[in-house]
Amino acid sequence: MGRYDLSLIGFGGVNRSLAELIAERGDELKAELGFGLRVVAITDLRAGSLVQADGIDLPALLATAPGELDFSRMAGGSTEPRNQQVIQDGPGDIVAEATFTNPADGEPALSHVRWALEAGKHVCTTNKGPVALQGPALKDLAARHGVSFEFEGSVMSGTPILRTAEHLLTGLRVTGVEGIMNGTSNYILGRLEAGAAFPDAVKEAQALGYAEADPTADVEGFDVQLKVMILAHQVLGANLRRQDVACEGISQLTPADMRDAASRGLRWKLVGQATRREDGSVDARVAPAALPADHPLAAISGTTNAVSFHTDLLGAVTVSGPGAGRTETAYALLSDIIAIHHRHGAAEAHRTPEESFRG
Amino acid sequence: MGRYDLSLIGFGGVNRSLAELIAERGDELKAELGFGLRVVAITDLRAGSLVQADGIDLPALLATAPGELDFSRMAGGSTEPRNQQVIQDGPGDIVAEATFTNPADGEPALSHVRWALEAGKHVCTTNKGPVALQGPALKDLAARHGVSFEFEGSVMSGTPILRTAEHLLTGLRVTGVEGIMNGTSNYILGRLEAGAAFPDAVKEAQALGYAEADPTADVEGFDVQLKVMILAHQVLGANLRRQDVACEGISQLTPADMRDAASRGLRWKLVGQATRREDGSVDARVAPAALPADHPLAAISGTTNAVSFHTDLLGAVTVSGPGAGRTETAYALLSDIIAIHHRHGAAEAHRTPEESFRG
Repeated sequence: MGRYDLSLIGFGGVNRSLAELIAERGDELKAELGFGLRVVAITDLRAGSLVQADGIDLPALLATAPGELDFSRMAGGSTEPRNQQVIQDGPGDIVAEATFTNPADGEPALSHVRWALEAGKHVCTTNKGPVALQGPALKDLAARHGVSFEFEGSVMSGTPILRTAEHLLTGLRVTGVEGIMNGTSNYILGRLEAGAAFPDAVKEAQALGYAEADPTADVEGFDVQLKVMILAHQVLGANLRRQDVACEGISQLTPADMRDAASRGLRWKLVGQATRREDGSVDARVAPAALPADHPLAAISGTTNAVSFHTDLLGAVTVSGPGAGRTETAYALLSDIIAIHHRHGAAEAHRTPEESFRG
Repeated sequence: MGRYDLSLIGFGGVNRSLAELIAERGDELKAELGFGLRVVAITDLRAGSLVQADGIDLPALLATAPGELDFSRMAGGSTEPRNQQVIQDGPGDIVAEATFTNPADGEPALSHVRWALEAGKHVCTTNKGPVALQGPALKDLAARHGVSFEFEGSVMSGTPILRTAEHLLTGLRVTGVEGIMNGTSNYILGRLEAGAAFPDAVKEAQALGYAEADPTADVEGFDVQLKVMILAHQVLGANLRRQDVACEGISQLTPADMRDAASRGLRWKLVGQATRREDGSVDARVAPAALPADHPLAAISGTTNAVSFHTDLLGAVTVSGPGAGRTETAYALLSDIIAIHHRHGAAEAHRTPEESFRG
């Protein structure tokens, strides 16, 4: 029985949920997965950093409310995040990157990922920035250093979209991919259908915690744009820049548009898509689309998200599930760690003296 | 570069489509998958049997219409299917079983599968009978002989339902599974919604090739019952008999029921489900259910099928896609062969002298 030591970069909702998951069901997961998990380092913009090579006492840490955490008061703690130092020289085998998404240049997450891969550490991340903007280069970097770069949570949280594409469609010709990949805008569209005006629908989404104070990235399609870039690469091998993905949001839609569509049996949805053209190039865009009732995405409602893969032999295969949520996204990181284990197995995890992985 | 030699048992639509797939894109698949595929034996109730250890010329064979095939006229051919002999002593590495489903005792497919596994051959099958009635025992038998028993096509043709359950939900607690798993009955329900009477809807489904001359297995839920048994074992570890799965079909539903449901925002669907009870046992059943519009299965229309996995950390994850079709089901066999290769890899496939698998 082996073990992986984790460094958590960013201790907001997602990595805190991962820590809770490990604290609450680490033993059960160990029995199921064949390896243990230990957190040995945490960095956070506000709380500072904490490095304990023998393993951080998670239940004690999690007893403190998020806003009250001050790592500098603990052994191995500092008021500074010290991200570079912790990532490069810290004791972790796997770096879990879950800082904020920066759609412009991916920083600082992009540097976090690079530092980790260059130091020979596996990386799992839920951060769309580095994956969308530099995914192919980071995959190469990981391969050169013999480690893994996993990012299931960058599209639809823990819903296994990227792993479906990678593992379960082998042998098919995938001609395109399209999805409803933003729960906030999908919720707002539902409220418009119910007759709410756009500003009121946004306020409702904010009150429920779905939309941020500045809802631009969600309602103008920029969040989906990054996910389209990720899917276009993972599914169609296309290396797109943001300017290659035309982007139109939902802020121009009104309840009247919704009623008009409904009268024709259609539903407006914010659809991100990437399609292989005849000449082999890839057309990618984000735009509202009025979908017929029998379209696989037409009935995806509320904060549920879905992605359809268009294939030659099976037609459309669609996976739907949660598109966000701290626990749902923390599971994405766990699924990444499981994938790292499957790829690297016995050679990678710390082994306890009396046991070995294959035993 | 290695190769697998296949024996096709039953040469109806599904295995013939698999042969077409190999004939049409074998080279492309070889480049993608890293192994070649060759058909070395075929048996069929009507056409007899054909064994050619150096590989059957598929394009030549497929040029003959299905009803005209007579293997006895060919070298290595016989008027008799000789299933036992071909399976046990024939040259195949992998046996693809695609004879008719017998829900009573699984025969003769059950014997075909047993013979193959006992002879140390991998088996892939689309046949629900052996999987539903003896799946756990056959998995054990395969393990004892160091081979694989794969059956993605037994539920929803090539749509990767069983592999999603096996590989992509690791670490989650799956509390239940439910699905629309019969395209014929789902099509008929759609026709009832459009106002057609039940007998007329059945006739339409028959005219379109969706329903068989005797539609009982589809409309009375018996087909779904077998799939529920398969899912209950694969997802919840329950070993159920047919009598453990209460089964009610759709033949009592009328257009009036549909209208009444619609007026309450509901849609009637034939749902197969298996749910873990508080005491750990599993409740499994097939029955029509009036689903609310926001239920993940409510909008699954026509011959599309879907299965939802209910999980603790992600809530419902739903996979939808084709539930039937000869090409779609042939792809299930190909996906099984890919899974066999991933599990057994280099040790199993024939190697050509100048190359090896890992090279």
